[in-house]
Order: sequence, then structure tokens, then C-alpha cells
Amino acid sequence: SNNFFLLSGPCAIEGEDMAMRIAEHIVKLTDKLSIPYVFKGSFKKANRSRVDSFTGIGDEKALKILRKVSETFNVPTVTDIHEVSDADKAAEYVDVLQIPAFLVRQTDLVVAAAKTGKTVNLKKGQFMSPESMKHAVTKVKDSGNSQVVITDRGTMFGYQDMVVDFRGIPTMKEFAPVVLDVTHSLQQPNQSSGVTGGRPALIETMARAGIATGVDGLFMETHFDPANAKSDGANMLSLDCLEQLLVNLTILRGTINELQ
Amino acid sequence: SNNFFLLSGPCAIEGEDMAMRIAEHIVKLTDKLSIPYVFKGSFKKANRSRVDSFTGIGDEKALKILRKVSETFNVPTVTDIHEVSDADKAAEYVDVLQIPAFLVRQTDLVVAAAKTGKTVNLKKGQFMSPESMKHAVTKVKDSGNSQVVITDRGTMFGYQDMVVDFRGIPTMKEFAPVVLDVTHSLQQPNQSSGVTGGRPALIETMARAGIATGVDGLFMETHFDPANAKSDGANMLSLDCLEQLLVNLTILRGTINELQ
Amino acid sequence: SNNFFLLSGPCAIEGEDMAMRIAEHIVKLTDKLSIPYVFKGSFKKANRSRVDSFTGIGDEKALKILRKVSETFNVPTVTDIHEVSDADKAAEYVDVLQIPAFLVRQTDLVVAAAKTGKTVNLKKGQFMSPESMKHAVTKVKDSGNSQVVITDRGTMFGYQDMVVDFRGIPTMKEFAPVVLDVTHSLQQPNQSSGVTGGRPALIETMARAGIATGVDGLFMETHFDPANAKSDGANMLSLDCLEQLLVNLTILRGTINELQ
Amino acid sequence: SNNFFLLSGPCAIEGEDMAMRIAEHIVKLTDKLSIPYVFKGSFKKANRSRVDSFTGIGDEKALKILRKVSETFNVPTVTDIHEVSDADKAAEYVDVLQIPAFLVRQTDLVVAAAKTGKTVNLKKGQFMSPESMKHAVTKVKDSGNSQVVITDRGTMFGYQDMVVDFRGIPTMKEFAPVVLDVTHSLQQPNQSSGVTGGRPALIETMARAGIATGVDGLFMETHFDPANAKSDGANMLSLDCLEQLLVNLTILRGTINELQ
Repeated sequence: SNNFFLLSGPCAIEGEDMAMRIAEHIVKLTDKLSIPYVFKGSFKKANRSRVDSFTGIGDEKALKILRKVSETFNVPTVTDIHEVSDADKAAEYVDVLQIPAFLVRQTDLVVAAAKTGKTVNLKKGQFMSPESMKHAVTKVKDSGNSQVVITDRGTMFGYQDMVVDFRGIPTMKEFAPVVLDVTHSLQQPNQSSGVTGGRPALIETMARAGIATGVDGLFMETHFDPANAKSDGANMLSLDCLEQLLVNLTILRGTINELQ
Repeated sequence: SNNFFLLSGPCAIEGEDMAMRIAEHIVKLTDKLSIPYVFKGSFKKANRSRVDSFTGIGDEKALKILRKVSETFNVPTVTDIHEVSDADKAAEYVDVLQIPAFLVRQTDLVVAAAKTGKTVNLKKGQFMSPESMKHAVTKVKDSGNSQVVITDRGTMFGYQDMVVDFRGIPTMKEFAPVVLDVTHSLQQPNQSSGVTGGRPALIETMARAGIATGVDGLFMETHFDPANAKSDGANMLSLDCLEQLLVNLTILRGTINELQ
Repeated sequence: SNNFFLLSGPCAIEGEDMAMRIAEHIVKLTDKLSIPYVFKGSFKKANRSRVDSFTGIGDEKALKILRKVSETFNVPTVTDIHEVSDADKAAEYVDVLQIPAFLVRQTDLVVAAAKTGKTVNLKKGQFMSPESMKHAVTKVKDSGNSQVVITDRGTMFGYQDMVVDFRGIPTMKEFAPVVLDVTHSLQQPNQSSGVTGGRPALIETMARAGIATGVDGLFMETHFDPANAKSDGANMLSLDCLEQLLVNLTILRGTINELQ
Repeated sequence: SNNFFLLSGPCAIEGEDMAMRIAEHIVKLTDKLSIPYVFKGSFKKANRSRVDSFTGIGDEKALKILRKVSETFNVPTVTDIHEVSDADKAAEYVDVLQIPAFLVRQTDLVVAAAKTGKTVNLKKGQFMSPESMKHAVTKVKDSGNSQVVITDRGTMFGYQDMVVDFRGIPTMKEFAPVVLDVTHSLQQPNQSSGVTGGRPALIETMARAGIATGVDGLFMETHFDPANAKSDGANMLSLDCLEQLLVNLTILRGTINELQ
């Protein structure tokens, strides 16, 4: 397929039922549209603004659900890790280890992920330039692992806003395949409530700009009922809206592929 | 035509020959591709970083060249104004009066432009949010002129860089048609030399993102020989490269027009 | 006096009574504290966000009030100009011509101010680096006028906030004496209402940091009743609070002067 | 003492000799000036831009040197931790556990530090607002530990620069005592070399602004020979310059303490 690939699923694994339902729904759509698909779900949320935010259902329990999704639907899976000790543990269950944006400068963590031999998805820090992601990619490759992907989730713009700098897409493609994280790049952090806000109506705008500027993949968190999700509800895409969006983006990608 | 429109020409009118040659070249391309075209040229450069920068060949002389381009090729023209007294003077010669980004908060200037009855092209200040352009548009409309366009030329990002925030395109389309100024949004201001730098290799990246996110028009400065242009050489597009770029963007626009 | 100097007064000249009352009040304080004082008042407000904002009581009327303040209290005065034609007009009445931050890149305006022979106060653009103010200063000096001052009024930080970068104070002191504009550096622009907000409780914090980092002067807008001022009420200092503030800053300046 | 307190020492513990020499030097100065002093040294550098950067001499070895410094000179010590498992280990040797700026959103790490009962020094993330540090402080307090300090090390300003927003000092003092990290707030990150640059000539400028705006403490990395230090050499202060700086800041603090 010359189509973009998709990392999608719920922000956090809240339970087996919701994970399986979401996976089933997206697998059907992506099969139809020839979109290579990776199921995404966090087994633990470690960087909440507030200590009373939801942090997960238990590590092993969540990781086993990720494995079940993978085996049931024959799709690879991705989850994020936060400590060195998470790397081997998660690598038993998933295909792609994701380094969160806040942690991409932690050398031990990046190297631990790289040494599992799994694909490493490095999120660009909100405080990093596209150019500086070269150093993070080099850490993975110097650890003997050439399976590395960069995901852009936006850059700090003042205290309470983020912006995606699309000039960075071609820059980062020189280092590794590039994914645009549509969900988190629309966040508006540091809100006074301690709960991150966002502007989900812009999801298609951002995704179209990403495809037009040559991203290899898209990352979108989805939920049957974003308003009642236990984390990141403000920016997740309702599954109802996913089909039309993926149809549009697939058409756009086809055109982009044909341009000289 | 459902194609995007194009504001293009040299940064400054350096003389009649160069203006006519550039216009002729672009008119041919835009006719072939059904791109509504407006010839752009500054009759005066008023906001150079350094006093020894090129500022123009004489106001009347430059404005007469703009009129000659318009009459010869049957295209509208646009030029930028910097003082209230420029408004009526320029309105005698051109079809669109452009308010520079640094000056878009000067009420007297915006109102003077509006009162000429010509179309007013308001450049978004590098220091303004997309939302705040509503107030500038309102000033034009409250002066009895509904012919108003907004052009985004990027937003300050630290001292020496600019970023285009594509979330702002749909926001500003609620107020007026929106143009993306590809040339100036790639500037890197405040360089220690006092001459603004840039990254012209990214012209097509930015233009594609603009079309994908729904801009109505594009603004691109062009020159036969950007390296020897008297201003803004760092970001102007060589005319040699324009055809392939416009072909690609026309195809992309066609696809965007068809999406649901 | 080795004390800092003070530019202060109302944002706009709203009438003779208020101007005289404010001047009298500040002259008494600054005489007592040996603070060289320049009365500040805008004769016209030209860059309001909204067309329905207050823009002034009439140019000549306001300028004559500035002259009367100067003659009555034997203090110099400063006002801001917005068009080339303002330069000579204002120079008849005041001692210092101020170039607004949005306009400091307009070469014609800066040169026109310089050529009057009056002191020129260049406000650093919100979009400019401290280093780049060197070019603006050079334009004044190259016009044969060595009486030039730079005023820092903060730098854009995201869309709706400004920050003062105190690293810039020593940088700009290499070019000219430096003033910190405490009032405007606390603005929070681009608010959705179209009226700029701010955080006046921080006035003393900012002023102390300015004195500690070596500014030569301070700029503070003041009003008997900021809540009812016709512009910039959100950030003006109530005259009631001015005395204790100036006492503290004078003590602080004395200490700074003695450090090695 | 009503003086500010000082966290100072080398960026990384490079060996016992250098640590003891630096501590001895600073203890003498701070005793003379009545500055409460905490010896600072990292036992491990975990977030280097490049994998070939210096990361330490061995964890236990470095921690034992910190203990020896503490016992020899009777001063408390501070070191930074990067993983949950570091918390108990470091708490055996030092008095203050510091959470690095990149990691201050990692709830597990902050809670682990808090639960040791040691003082927790939370560095404000370069991507966080002053207001949002309230949530990090709350995580420490909700873990039963009221000994918490906030250190400001600047905020991202574009890709390659940082700025200290002094408005944030009074804001954060509402949550906990506030330290200004003069060394790291002068960094210029994301340089193309992968090695962070900086502007050490501004150390005194920033420190003065900090004292003037009411910080409770200062953080300054120091070295006998910054040019040959194994990390952060670009911003460390030469020990030769420390005495005059501390004398000046002590005088300044005395004045600030007396203001009304």
C-alpha cells in the first residue's frame, strides 16, 4: 500500500470490552481503505497534571488486553513506556514502544526501548526543534535498532497553547518516517483547571495538512464516547466520524502520491 | 473557476522591464491553469531593518508601472500602503490595497484604505492571533467596504523564527477569504545581519499545507533571479520553478474541492 | 542625580484638568525623590483593536495641553507619533518623540522623528529581538540625531501574552539608554473581547527587576482612577500607589549604584 | 538569617577531589556571608542530547561523595533523580531530592520522592506555566510531605532559546519557596551541535532580577574550570567570580528585605 499508516485507539486501555470494540471498528475501516493499522493504547498514564487523574487499570491487565487485540485482529500494537523497567515488560506484549514527548531526552529510557528490538516511536518533545530529533534517532540506531519512527505532537507556543510547525515534517523525514499526532497537537496545556483542553473540531484540518506535507503516518486517539473517556476526552475523535475522515485522507494521499 | 487565486510578482517594482517580464510569465501560466491572478509589486519599501536597504524607484514611477501591467495583461494589481496619504494615491493605480502586517493595527490607515472602495488585503500581524483579525476586518466593513481579504504571513516564534499556525485558517475564513503568504511566512527575522533570512526550499511544503487546509488564495513573491533581487531575495521563488508548483497545487486543489 | 528617570502620565490626554492634576501629583513626588521626570501623554490613539475605542480629544487640543504641562511644571514631555506628518507637528509642542512599538520598523517615521532634533524614544517592537534594536538606533543616529532612547515593552509570548526578557537590558544598553515600560509589558493582548487585559498587581515586581538589571528609566502610565480611564485602564497604576513604589525603587536604585 | 539560600556545586560529580574542593570554597564564602548553603551535584546525567555525552562516574560512587561532602562540611546536599527506583537510593545519601524539569509531570517519580520524607525540589518544566506548578506541589503535599521547593529554570521561547518570566516568581511563591536556577535559565537549547549553548555573562543580571523579585533561593552551577567541565560548561560560573557575585547579591537582598 502507498497509503499512510494509522496509529489509533483509545488514549488509555480502560477495559477489554472497550479496547476490542474500538479495534474491531477501526480494523474494518482500515482494511477497506488499505490503511496499514497499528492499535494504540496506554497501559498506564504516568504524567497526569493532577494526582487524582485516572492512571490505569493495572499494568499486566492492560498489556494482556493489548496482546489480545493483536492476536484477535492480527494487527500490531503500540504502547508508551515511562521507566527503563517498562521496556522489557511492555516488549513482551506489543510491537511498538513509544517514548512520550516529555521523556524523549531520557537517554536510558530510549536506549532500553531500542535494545528490546521492537520498533521505537519517539515523540518529539514539545520543547524540541525538529532538527534536534536527530540526536534521539541516533540513540536508537547506535543501540543497534534501525526500526525507529518520529511522531510530532506539536510545540509549545506560549504557556497555554501548542502549534504544529509543518516545516519540521520534511526536516524530520531525513531522520526517520514521520507521524503526525493529530490528537495531542491540538491540546491546549496548562489550563487553570489542571485538565488539558483542546480544539477537536480542527482534527481534519490538521490531518489534511499532515498528509499534504508528506507525513508517513497519522496518530489519532478515538473513543466511542469521547465525552465520557477517562483521559484526553477533549481531543479524541468520536468513532462515528472516523470513516469519512479516513476516506477523505486516503483520497488526498492518493493525489499527493501522484504529484511530481 | 474553483481554483485558488494567486497574488504574485516581485517583492518591489525595480523597473518596468522586470515587472512586465514577470507579469507576462505568470499570466501565461495562470491562464493555462485557470488560476485567477493578481499582479503584486510594492511601489515603496518602508520597513527595512536597515536604513541602507533598497526602498524603491520613486512612488509615481512604480505605480505607473503597476497600471501598465494591469492594462497590458488585463489583470488586477495589488500594492501595499504605509501612510494614510498613500491610500488615495495608490487607489488611482491599483485594484487591491494591502495593509502590511506591522501596520494592521493602525486604524487610520485601515479606514483610509477601506474608504477608497478598493479591495483591502489585511495582512495578519506577526503579533496577532487569528481570532483578533476579526477586529481589523470589522474596521473595513464598518467603513462601508465589504471587499476585504486576510493574508496570513506567519506568527512570531521566539525572536528569530516564524511559524504558520494552520488552525488559524478556518478561524479566519469565518471573517473573510484567506490567503497564505508563502514567501514571508518562511522568513526568519531579526538575524544579526539586519537582513532577514529564510528557507525557500519549503515553499511547496507550505503551499500544499495551505491548499489542504482550505485557503482561498496564495501569495508568492517571484523573481527571474532571486539571488540578485533588491529585497527579500532569500525567500522569493525563481520563476523557473513556478510552473511545476502551480500544476501540483491546482491538482491538489481539485482534490480538496471534491472532498466531503 | 544618579537616580533612574521616569516617563509617566496618563495613557491618553483626556482633557486639561486630568493632565494638570496628574502632572502636579507626579512632579511633587519626583522632586522629593530626585527622580528626573518626563510627563507622558498620547495626543492620539491610533492603533486600537476596535474602531469604537477612544482615539483622542483632537490633536492640537491635546498637544497644547502637553505644552501647558511643560510650561507650568517646568518638565519635559513625551508623546507618540504615528505618521511622518505627525513628527514636525508634535515637535512644536513636546521634547521627546516616541515611536510606537508596532511602528519602529517604519524607516520614514523614525527618520522624520530624528530630523526634528528632538530626543527619539524607540519602543522595541513586540516582534523584535533586543539585538535588532541596534538597526533602529542606527537610523536615528544616521539622521544626525544622537538623542535616542530605547524602551522595552515586552515581547510576544504565544498569542495572548507578553514576557519581558531581562537579558535584553544589558544588550540594548550597548546601543542607547534603556527604559522599561512597566505598564505595557504587563499587557495580555489579543483577548477575545478586543480589549487588552493585564496584570497590574505585578507592576512593582517588574519595576524592581528593571532597576536591578540596570535600566536607566521607567515608563509607567498612571491615572487617578484607572478603572474609568478611556484607554489602557487595565494596566495603569493608581496615583495613590505611586509614592510608595517610587520610594522603594529609589532605595533599590541607590543600592544598585553602589554595587561593584 | 534573612539572606537568600544557595544551591550550588558542579553540574555533575566528576570525582571526589573536585567535589570537595568546590564545596570547601563555597562553604567558606557562604559562611562569611550568612548564606544558607546546599551542596549540589548530579550523581548521573540522564538526559543528554547525545548518547556520547558524559553521564557520570557510577551512581554509588557519586552518591558517597555527596555524603562525604555533607559530613565533612556539615551542609545539606541535593541531587536529581530520574526514575522511581532512584528515590530511595538517593534518599540514603542526600537531603534534598530534585525532580528535573523534563520529569516534573511524571507523577510516580514525584510521589516516590515525596514519600522518602526528604525535601523535594521541583524544577518547573520548560513547557509549564508558573500557575501549573501548583499541581506538582499538590502531588508532594498529598503524599504527606510538606517540604517542597520550586525551582524556575526558564521557559521555552521558540526552539532555541529560553526566557525567565519574572511574573511567575510571586505566582509560584503562593505554592512553595521559589528558587531561580540562574545557570540553566541561560541555556540556549536545541543547538545544531547537540550541545546546549548559553550566555554566562548574564549570570549576575539574572541573579539580581531574581533577588529583586523576591526569590527565596538561587541555584548556580560552579566549577573551578568551566571550560573543561564534563557537562554544562557553557553556563557554569567560574569559582573565581563567585565571591563578588554573592557579596553583591547579599547587599541587594538586604535592601529588598527592608522595603515596604
